[in-house]
Formats: sequence, structure tokens, C-alpha cells
Amino acid sequence: MATLCRPAVSVPEHVITLEQTLEVARDLHAANPALPLALRLIRNTGVRKRHLVQPIEEALRHPGFGERNRLHSAGARAMVPGVVRRALANAGLGPADIDLIVYVSCTGFSMPSPTAWLINTMGFAPGTRQLPIAQLGCAAGGAAINRAHDFCTAYPEANALVVSCEFCSLCYQPTDLGVGSLLSNGLFGDAVAAAVVRGSGGTGIRLVRNGSWLVPGTESWISYAVEDTGFHFVLDRRVPRTTGALAPALAELSGELRWDVSDLDFYVVHAGGPRILDDLSLHLGVDGHLFRHSRATLADYGNIASAVVLDALGRLFDEGSGTPGDRGLIAGFGPGITAEMTFGTWSEEPVAHTGTGAPRTGTTRTGAAGRTAPPPSQWRNP
Amino acid sequence: MATLCRPAVSVPEHVITLEQTLEVARDLHAANPALPLALRLIRNTGVRKRHLVQPIEEALRHPGFGERNRLHSAGARAMVPGVVRRALANAGLGPADIDLIVYVSCTGFSMPSPTAWLINTMGFAPGTRQLPIAQLGCAAGGAAINRAHDFCTAYPEANALVVSCEFCSLCYQPTDLGVGSLLSNGLFGDAVAAAVVRGSGGTGIRLVRNGSWLVPGTESWISYAVEDTGFHFVLDRRVPRTTGALAPALAELSGELRWDVSDLDFYVVHAGGPRILDDLSLHLGVDGHLFRHSRATLADYGNIASAVVLDALGRLFDEGSGTPGDRGLIAGFGPGITAEMTFGTWSEEPVAHTGTGAPRTGTTRTGAAGRTAPPPSQWRNP
Repeated sequence: MATLCRPAVSVPEHVITLEQTLEVARDLHAANPALPLALRLIRNTGVRKRHLVQPIEEALRHPGFGERNRLHSAGARAMVPGVVRRALANAGLGPADIDLIVYVSCTGFSMPSPTAWLINTMGFAPGTRQLPIAQLGCAAGGAAINRAHDFCTAYPEANALVVSCEFCSLCYQPTDLGVGSLLSNGLFGDAVAAAVVRGSGGTGIRLVRNGSWLVPGTESWISYAVEDTGFHFVLDRRVPRTTGALAPALAELSGELRWDVSDLDFYVVHAGGPRILDDLSLHLGVDGHLFRHSRATLADYGNIASAVVLDALGRLFDEGSGTPGDRGLIAGFGPGITAEMTFGTWSEEPVAHTGTGAPRTGTTRTGAAGRTAPPPSQWRNP
Repeated sequence: MATLCRPAVSVPEHVITLEQTLEVARDLHAANPALPLALRLIRNTGVRKRHLVQPIEEALRHPGFGERNRLHSAGARAMVPGVVRRALANAGLGPADIDLIVYVSCTGFSMPSPTAWLINTMGFAPGTRQLPIAQLGCAAGGAAINRAHDFCTAYPEANALVVSCEFCSLCYQPTDLGVGSLLSNGLFGDAVAAAVVRGSGGTGIRLVRNGSWLVPGTESWISYAVEDTGFHFVLDRRVPRTTGALAPALAELSGELRWDVSDLDFYVVHAGGPRILDDLSLHLGVDGHLFRHSRATLADYGNIASAVVLDALGRLFDEGSGTPGDRGLIAGFGPGITAEMTFGTWSEEPVAHTGTGAPRTGTTRTGAAGRTAPPPSQWRNP
């Protein structure tokens, strides 16, 4: 059974606090009648600070779509290798053990995909499959885990690396002055994250079943307007209502396992904003405390798009409260409106119970215990 | 075993012939010292005509990246449903039988992915997985087949729909005046294509084994420069040399099946240009006639990016020469430089041999013979 190992997360050095965000908004939009509402909404997000890939002065400039994509690539090359190395170490694997890289990012575009650069520079085998996903937005963190899960279901001796690279500040559009845009400017943050899904062995979340759900007729509710100036984030005020449609989808998928979605041991859900967390806890009948990891991500980093679920999951690991057999949910929500959901159980401790898992953390590239030897071919075709 | 069913392909109505292409190039670039070489290269492509999503006069204008993406979406909405319906009919399936949509397109960008629109408008279930891929260029046709194959390997009762939507003319950049750009302007064409991979049942190519290969150190050889004006295609003159590196990759994957890559019954390979076909036939030691379907695609439509392999495959089906058990190769090549390869065998005739397959073509949504009944849940979680 596929296991999602402990994620690694990194945020850039430039920090903007809630107070600084409010100050910038007041400075820039003093005459905007939407300002008071936007300030109130930003205060209510629960975001205490965010990390940006550039100092705020530079982040507020728009140097053009081309330059922004160059900044995105440069930021990715600076930050992604670090989280990849840590994620591999967390899984007890090295680059040569990876068969698939799922790379998700909706805040910059490049071709070739950054997977080619990673393979060329970090020691992944040339036969590593590349799966870049740019168009699933905040749902892509869940989608990446789910496609990695599917791959390891197809090839149980394979391993998949999931990478999320989101520099939301590079989609800041100074000419977008609606309340939704002003709110977004105070909500989104930058981060990179990675995690490994092992087809066999390893410790973490044993992935039991995944599913996707598109809420009918909501295509335009979360979207990019793609313009000469790049990606303009468009958020419909009806979005929070979709929680009422997502909860039954979660309950139904959970029900296929005969699990009660209101009575799981952990919940790692996309923290798009505080409202979605409040509403989801209400609709699922779940104590809000169970969403504490998602809330902590939102407070510390803002909405970091597809990286949210990996960061919130990392906090669950950090807390150390997982007990073997604990059942839980990971769910990303994003444009479509799409939910990408997976249900899993907390794995046994590696040594005490099975002796086959890899250590939870490590600093060197190690062969993984509990795996069959790789095939002799350099293909590592699972 | 997963089966790749007969593809459906459609090209837009606006046609530009080789002679018209040369005339346009002469008109626009009379003073360009690269013109004579470009004209010679274009003549040598073997492209007799191409189909464009706009009349040539409009295609030569650049209305901005935003407007181009709107044209891309409009073209996709006009053309994709038709090929999807035909691909489903070819597989003997209806929209509700599909569990995954892999949608590949490198010539326009949108979020949500077009998969959301397809699901909302064509009767696919809300639980259909969405896998949009924008960053694998011409290799994405092969990648889409391979990821669909992996999915159906994980869930043998599932079905995946592959869609390719490439309007290369919307990446025309009038300010790019190098010989590589001028050549590209005469090489690429527009097309949409679709095909179904059935996890069980169906007739077509039984997918045996797939693999990917990144030629080390060639990241910059085929790429987009992402600028304010959108995607600028950059082609390095060293690209043809990579054929020498791709042939051993094909041979090695083939060897894992104990198949001789020089002695297969059919070859469906990406027709990036005439040189890659010539060189590949040389490196593989294969008679050039075996690449006739790829050559026909190139001649009739130009390089239609990720749609090439689906179109060439369609021509193989049309020819009707497939014999049960025939062994062959499908390979897409694109940025990275990446090869996405799959080996498969021609399936038995549906009625005469097994009685379980669906008819090759059909016009109505039909339940597929040879599949188990779908699960009662609307999830259709495989």
C-alpha cells in the first residue's frame, strides 16, 4: 500500500505581517471605496504573516509577465532542491529511487517543465516520469498526492516525488482593484513543499482511497483571467457556498470505506481562507480544533495554494500525535471548483511494528529498507 | 490489460498550402538574410498544407497574449467536443464510463483547466479525475497515453479519455526573425484529437509497457521563452542530434520486453520534422516506409505538437493493416528533451476472437461489452 511520507516545506525570507499588509493596502487604495471592506476581510483571514519571494517593495511592482516567469524560475531553482532533498531523506530514499515526479505550480509557467531541470541537476534517473500540472490551482496539492498514489498503485515497487512551488506574490496585479482582488493581495503567500509517496515501505499516511469532485456549474468562481499582464486571480463571492457541496462529496467517498467523515482522527484540508474552514467544520460536524494544522498554515504563511495541504500535513507530523491506525482525510480545493481528496491511515511505527519502514528523517541518501532491489536496468521501470 | 482505442482527430477549416506559406514568408521577410535558408528548410519539411484555427491574415496578427488565450479557449470549445464524442464512440463508451480525463495542450493556458468545462457540458461524472498537462509540448501526446495507461493499470476497470488540443498558430510571434522561428512558422499546424484508454475490453492497441526518457543536458534545446507576448518557441539547431540518444532509449525499453525495436510491425512516432523521421529510421535500422503514418500527418497537417501521435495512430487504424498480435511502438518527443514511449500489441478482432470488445466505431453512447457493471456509487471510484 502506498505511503505518503513526511513532507518538507520552505518559505522565502521576506516577511510581511498582517499590520504591514493593512498599511500597504491603506497607502495604495486610500481612495478605493472597496478599501474598508477589504481591510476588514483581510483582518478576518487569520493570516498573521506571509513570506514573499521578493521584498514587498519589489513585489508591488509589475515588471511584466515575461520577467515574472523568470523570477519564478529563479526562485524555484533556489528553493526547490532543498525541500526535495529533505523530502527524500524523510522517505529514506535517494533521487535514483524515484520513478515519477509530480510538479505542481499555478503561479508561473515554463516549458520544459521544471522537472527536466530537477532530473538534470539532482541525480534523478533520465527515465523518471515527469508530470507537471499547472492548471489545478490550490487543488493541485491534493491532485499531486492522488496521482502519485495512483502511480504507486499501478506499480507497487515505485516511488513518486511530489513537489509544489507556489509564488503567489508573482501573480499580484496592481491594476485589479475589486474587493476580491484586494482581499487576495492580503491572503496569498509564497512557499515550496515536497513529499514522497512510496509504493511500499516507509512511514506516514497509508493512502487508502482517493477521489476527485467537481462542483457542477462553478467553473468561473475561482479562475485566472489570462491577460497580457499574466494571471489575474478572479474570486467569486459565492465560493464559500461551495463548502455545502463539498462536504457531501467528502462524506460519500468516506462512506465507501465505511468511515464516518465526521469522526476521523485527523483532517488536513486546504486553508483557502478562514470561512472555508469554519463552514467545513460545520457541514462535516467536526470540532474546529481538528482543523488546527490548516489554520496554523493560514496564520503563518497565508494561503500558499497547492502547498497548503503539504504544509498542514507537515504540522501534523511535527505534532507527533499520530497513533498507528488513526484514520484521516487530506483534501485540496481549487478551481473547477474541484476537490481532490484522499483518505488514509497513520502507519505503524517503522521498527517496533514491521521493521520494514525507513526512518522518518535522515540526512543522507539511503537505500530504503523493505523495498525489493531495483531492477538491474537503468530504466527502473516499475 | 489497458487498450488504446481508435483516436478521433479534427482540424480547423482554414487551410494554408506550402506554396502559400512560402509566399507569406517571402512577403514578410524579403530583407531577412535568413530567408533563403528558411525557405529551403520549409520546402524540405514535407509539409504540403496545414490547417489553422483562423484565416492566415488574422493568424499573422498578434492581438496580445490575453486575446490569444481567449481564441484558444473558444477554438477548444468549438472543436474538442466533436473529437471527444467520436473517441468515446470508437471505444464503445459514453461519458459516464470515463474515470480520468488527461487534457494536453501547450499552446494556450487557462485555469480552471478545460477539463472542468468538458465535465460540466458533456455529461462526464463530477467524480471524473482531471489531469491537465501544459508543459510537455510535443511529448505530451505520448505522456497522456502513458499516464492513462498507468491509471488503468492501477484500476483495471477504469477508463481514461485522452484529449490533445493544439493551436500552434496562436503561438506565432511576428517579431521572432531567426531562421529557427521562420522554419517553425512554416512547420506547425493546428489540430485537436482524442482517444480512450480502456482498462479492460475494447479493441486497438493493448498497452504493454511504457517509459519516459530525458536526454541529459538538453533542457534549452526545445523550449518556450515566456514573454509578455506569450510563448516564443525556441528551437536549437542541435535538436536533430538527439535522435542518436533517443534510439538507444527506445531499444532498451523494447529490450525489456525482449522485443527487437528494429523489427516491430508498426511505428507511431512524433513527426517533429522530416529529419527526425529520417534519422530515427536510420538509427533504429527500420525501413522508412514504416514511418509512413507519421509522414502523412506531417504532410497533411504539419507538426501538430502533442496531437501528432494520435493522428498518426488514427491513420494506422484507417489503413486496416493491423493483424492481431502485431507489435509496435508509440513515441512522442518534445521539450526536455523528453521521449514518452509505449509498446503495445494489436488486439484481437472483437467479435471473431473474443466477443468481449466494443465495436470499433459507433455513433451513440453505448455500454461496453466486456466490462463489469459500474459500481452503484456515482463515484465510479475504480
